[in-house]
Amino acid sequence: MVTLKQLAKELNVSISTVSKALNNSEEIGEETVRRVKELAELYNYKPNKVALSLKQNKTKTIGVIIPDILNHFLAKVLFGIEREAAKYGYNIITCISNESLDKEKESMQFLANGSVDGFILSLAEETQMKNEVEHFKKTMAQGLPIVMFDRVAHDVMCDKVIVDDFEAIYNATKNLQAKKRKNIAFISSIDGLSVGKLRERGYNKAILEQQAAKPLVLKIKKKDDNQKKIYGFLKKNPGIDAVVAADSSSGVIAINAAINLGLKVPKDISVIGFSSKADSNLTFPRLTTIRQHAKEIGANAAQLLINRLQSKVLEEDVKTIIVKTSIVKCKSTV
Amino acid sequence: MVTLKQLAKELNVSISTVSKALNNSEEIGEETVRRVKELAELYNYKPNKVALSLKQNKTKTIGVIIPDILNHFLAKVLFGIEREAAKYGYNIITCISNESLDKEKESMQFLANGSVDGFILSLAEETQMKNEVEHFKKTMAQGLPIVMFDRVAHDVMCDKVIVDDFEAIYNATKNLQAKKRKNIAFISSIDGLSVGKLRERGYNKAILEQQAAKPLVLKIKKKDDNQKKIYGFLKKNPGIDAVVAADSSSGVIAINAAINLGLKVPKDISVIGFSSKADSNLTFPRLTTIRQHAKEIGANAAQLLINRLQSKVLEEDVKTIIVKTSIVKCKSTV
Repeated sequence: MVTLKQLAKELNVSISTVSKALNNSEEIGEETVRRVKELAELYNYKPNKVALSLKQNKTKTIGVIIPDILNHFLAKVLFGIEREAAKYGYNIITCISNESLDKEKESMQFLANGSVDGFILSLAEETQMKNEVEHFKKTMAQGLPIVMFDRVAHDVMCDKVIVDDFEAIYNATKNLQAKKRKNIAFISSIDGLSVGKLRERGYNKAILEQQAAKPLVLKIKKKDDNQKKIYGFLKKNPGIDAVVAADSSSGVIAINAAINLGLKVPKDISVIGFSSKADSNLTFPRLTTIRQHAKEIGANAAQLLINRLQSKVLEEDVKTIIVKTSIVKCKSTV
Repeated sequence: MVTLKQLAKELNVSISTVSKALNNSEEIGEETVRRVKELAELYNYKPNKVALSLKQNKTKTIGVIIPDILNHFLAKVLFGIEREAAKYGYNIITCISNESLDKEKESMQFLANGSVDGFILSLAEETQMKNEVEHFKKTMAQGLPIVMFDRVAHDVMCDKVIVDDFEAIYNATKNLQAKKRKNIAFISSIDGLSVGKLRERGYNKAILEQQAAKPLVLKIKKKDDNQKKIYGFLKKNPGIDAVVAADSSSGVIAINAAINLGLKVPKDISVIGFSSKADSNLTFPRLTTIRQHAKEIGANAAQLLINRLQSKVLEEDVKTIIVKTSIVKCKSTV
């Protein structure tokens, strides 16, 4: 790659002259401008992007910090952010906190030092558990706006994009009750997350609104064998006639476990999962799912941040967008 | 965030003096160095990272271009790259080509302009179909090394990390034959990819080595309903007593379709999939899987690139690492 210095040397002029000529400065004579531009083209000269961003003090880059790249929902949100940002000429840099508070802080500090114009992020599990928010506030005080999505910190005044986790599960449970299901169980492997807690509360509310019903909940830990847990739970509670799952794999496993136990789905037991179309396709019958519209969440987050970067909103005008889930009915429910 | 300029103003010295003092230049008197450093500490001054990288001509950042973030295997490789790079103080910037040649070229050009020291990438589907490699060669000629993984361009002389796709499926098919399976089918939804073709060839070779056997292949296109296709295929070919799946979901669906057709797994039909432990857990019985060790692939790719960036290898000394798959036997095979 040819540099300004090399061009200057070959043309026997100063580096500053080359730079000014390439930027059509009036200080430089026409003939010199022509010579510089010709040579620059010949060598396919490209201005150094880092130098450019330093000069303009804008990187046109958004820092994205996500807790877990292996989470399909988060990957889809990332996809949505990337696509929306590209429309406005923004690039994204992605860092993975791996659910660790330290890694989240580190990534933030690294990117905040001149690499990005602002952040889109979802909190690490550890950050949520320790309820630490100072690093977000500090970054915002440096003039770098933050948009949070899905797992958000309610104590930080910034734009947010969230899902109606509570209503989604409440409505799903109500639907099952309307179809005369009496023993509706709730299965969750995301009890440690704010969204997991909201989903469980939605289930509890719907159950407790019915007389004579009481919650029946299976919580799966990371170290557990999820297949064994769900199979054992259904076997031990043969009265269960419906399952609401809080995460993407539990619904799929619940259907397959029920079939393996000799139950008919949905005749004997209905199952609703919180997952994607691809997951829904894995089972016979196909899984009825609560869809989160992950790409839309990503697009909304990108839009909020870009509006702020382009000063289209007042600083104190903080927004929370709720992207509504929808239930896509398949054959695993009546 | 305080700048060099603000420090200089407050101390009534030039910006250059502040900068030199912070870098312990001998040109600057001790007393001035002390004053500058004290104020810098008071204001928690941090050198602008963009400016630093410009000066050192090193970004300590690796550009990663992956074709599809929604692909669990690629997401896991990314995770492996990130973790290994972090050990050496490298950060990663991730771009998604979304299987498009143009997007791949664009991302490459964007990052090559001073943002990264080198690349780790897997080719977009379109790039593979059109067999275009000029943009890779051009980038390398600019002095930015490339490491390719999984989907690689054989015409480009660079470090590569690949999987033994051919042998993996060949061995899996041979295993099934050794267990007296006579009618082994192959199901693939990744026919357009180099790795998909290699896997099919592995299957064909094993089948054609047996007298009186001929290949039985189902290819699923993106627009197809994969569940319907697989169910129909098994129903139309009741003689099938084993399935080898080339991708992550086809194996799971094959088991569930077979059970739905009243078959016993593995008694009537054995199934081997090309997927992760999480996928294996979704079915009853659990799916026997060919595991790709995605994180190891990522770690190897990062290692190769960092060795090159740190000039630990000769330029012409190009390596290809094959990360061997392994078969993890579960209850879907006898």
